[in-house]
Amino acid sequence: MVEDKVIGIDLGGTRIRAALMDGDGNILARTRLATEAGQGLEHVLNRLELAVNTVAETFDHSQIIGIGIGAPGPLNPKTGVVYSPPNLPGWSNVPLGDILEQRTGLPVFLENDANAAVMGEYIFGVAKGYRYVVYMTVSTGIGAGVIEDGRLLYGRNGAAGEVGHMTIDLNGPLCNCGNIGCLEVLASGTAIGRRAREILARDIRPSIMREICGQNLESVTAEIVELAASQGDAMAGEILQQTAVYLGVGVTNILHLYNPEIVILGGGVAQMGDKLFEPMRAVIKQRAMPAYCQNVPIVTTKLGDDIGLYGAAAGVIAYRNEALERKQHLHQKVD
Amino acid sequence: MVEDKVIGIDLGGTRIRAALMDGDGNILARTRLATEAGQGLEHVLNRLELAVNTVAETFDHSQIIGIGIGAPGPLNPKTGVVYSPPNLPGWSNVPLGDILEQRTGLPVFLENDANAAVMGEYIFGVAKGYRYVVYMTVSTGIGAGVIEDGRLLYGRNGAAGEVGHMTIDLNGPLCNCGNIGCLEVLASGTAIGRRAREILARDIRPSIMREICGQNLESVTAEIVELAASQGDAMAGEILQQTAVYLGVGVTNILHLYNPEIVILGGGVAQMGDKLFEPMRAVIKQRAMPAYCQNVPIVTTKLGDDIGLYGAAAGVIAYRNEALERKQHLHQKVD
Repeated sequence: MVEDKVIGIDLGGTRIRAALMDGDGNILARTRLATEAGQGLEHVLNRLELAVNTVAETFDHSQIIGIGIGAPGPLNPKTGVVYSPPNLPGWSNVPLGDILEQRTGLPVFLENDANAAVMGEYIFGVAKGYRYVVYMTVSTGIGAGVIEDGRLLYGRNGAAGEVGHMTIDLNGPLCNCGNIGCLEVLASGTAIGRRAREILARDIRPSIMREICGQNLESVTAEIVELAASQGDAMAGEILQQTAVYLGVGVTNILHLYNPEIVILGGGVAQMGDKLFEPMRAVIKQRAMPAYCQNVPIVTTKLGDDIGLYGAAAGVIAYRNEALERKQHLHQKVD
Repeated sequence: MVEDKVIGIDLGGTRIRAALMDGDGNILARTRLATEAGQGLEHVLNRLELAVNTVAETFDHSQIIGIGIGAPGPLNPKTGVVYSPPNLPGWSNVPLGDILEQRTGLPVFLENDANAAVMGEYIFGVAKGYRYVVYMTVSTGIGAGVIEDGRLLYGRNGAAGEVGHMTIDLNGPLCNCGNIGCLEVLASGTAIGRRAREILARDIRPSIMREICGQNLESVTAEIVELAASQGDAMAGEILQQTAVYLGVGVTNILHLYNPEIVILGGGVAQMGDKLFEPMRAVIKQRAMPAYCQNVPIVTTKLGDDIGLYGAAAGVIAYRNEALERKQHLHQKVD
């Protein structure tokens, strides 16, 4: 086991990140390159192959048991097919798993970002030792991966855990998805920035957000709200407080629907720390039924930006036996 | 398999219902008796034993492979312990499974009502052949059972699927559970009756609900609302229309969170038929993302009042091998 090596790839619309790691999650080599998604499918496939070769080059290939890829959905983890992710133009029903297996001779495990992340926490992160886990990412959008009794919750087409598009305010604002009052349209980083811009446009109170953005209100983002709040700005503080309420309601629903042992929050917004987590935890304590929230840690990821790499690699570790079988089978085909 | 017989028991606070059925769900004998819960634990245990003996008396006991019990939660399906259901006074951490096994010599499978119901649909009902199923009951309260890839979704203490206490209106009314704007406080039978009483008290329009209740507004229930709506009463129709919106939002969240292949609604409110289902389906179509709602039937149970019996029995059928092993083990202990 200790000699096993796996490659984890975090495939994003902007960047490809890859790492070779051992079964304990020690990163032995890593690389990062631009996806250059605009140059089309074949180009990105070459970039992925380059990333694999870069991290694998100085290591004994026989020890590498597989490649895990975390990619933006929608995709099918069972067939390894990527449908048509909005941020990978020109991709349509790409059998990414098969293609990379042929190019590398290694079994490939494809998973969507959110599912990969929860697997990363389960195998390498704060959810180690738990069997009922939810990982929720709060950044530009909001999504989640769910582990029930040690297995990923998939649903009929691998799309379960779409918590970002759970209505928590049925009279709320319209979401991009067409639904109303979704958690994502209320509590994502995008939502924080939008709410700040709306409030700045109509609220005459002074706010250092106006200075930070150089009076260019259209440029206000969640990062500016956070910066202003950390400097004691009242308006920014209220915006984060309201965001904490939305997230608290969202997590309460997650507790009631999935009944997990631990909830982990990742993504940029979750990195805002106590100024978000303290009021959020208070909302959860007030709203969730005791049997669902008592002794359930609500924590941030400790894996930082590497969550995508760990998550991708975890998909191979979790199915080690399958990986070994598939690798042997791939090599028999070649021989 | 065909010769297998199972006993299903639907244990309620008011009634105990029991049936002996074969593996295809044909009911061979049934009984129904008052729970008489007020007379305490020992009395109810005797009633349960009586129910078992009544349905089993004219059949070959060697063919009976087990007893399934659906009971109000909270309970632990793995240990067979019933904690302290509000409608079974005097019950506290009762090892109901063990007790009934000792009294009957048959393995006992305990499950909460909602989980039993979804198993009933999965083994005997409209969800036969599906592997990702949600059953939602809408009556006095609202609850759900979820099947993911052929297995019950439990969560850390068997309490997953608490969809009744999912917030869909974060500025909504306070729920009994302490949370705000829960689906249950908006769309249950109790909620329909309460909303009708509130509207009748302040809306001066004529409504046949006033006649049906004999001007005793406090006695208006969901049944009266339904009756009035079916006679074309505008106010009652609006109340059901609003209920359909709440249920549509709830089901949309269920689709996004569990990504099932089929959603089945049971309970008294779900029996209201098209006047509720048509507007509810329209809300779902409008709000749910296509990948989550296309080709996903949203239907009522066909098992009627017997859903509790089928659900209880299904818990034995689904674990037939375990039942046979445990039965043999029980008999070895006796010998």
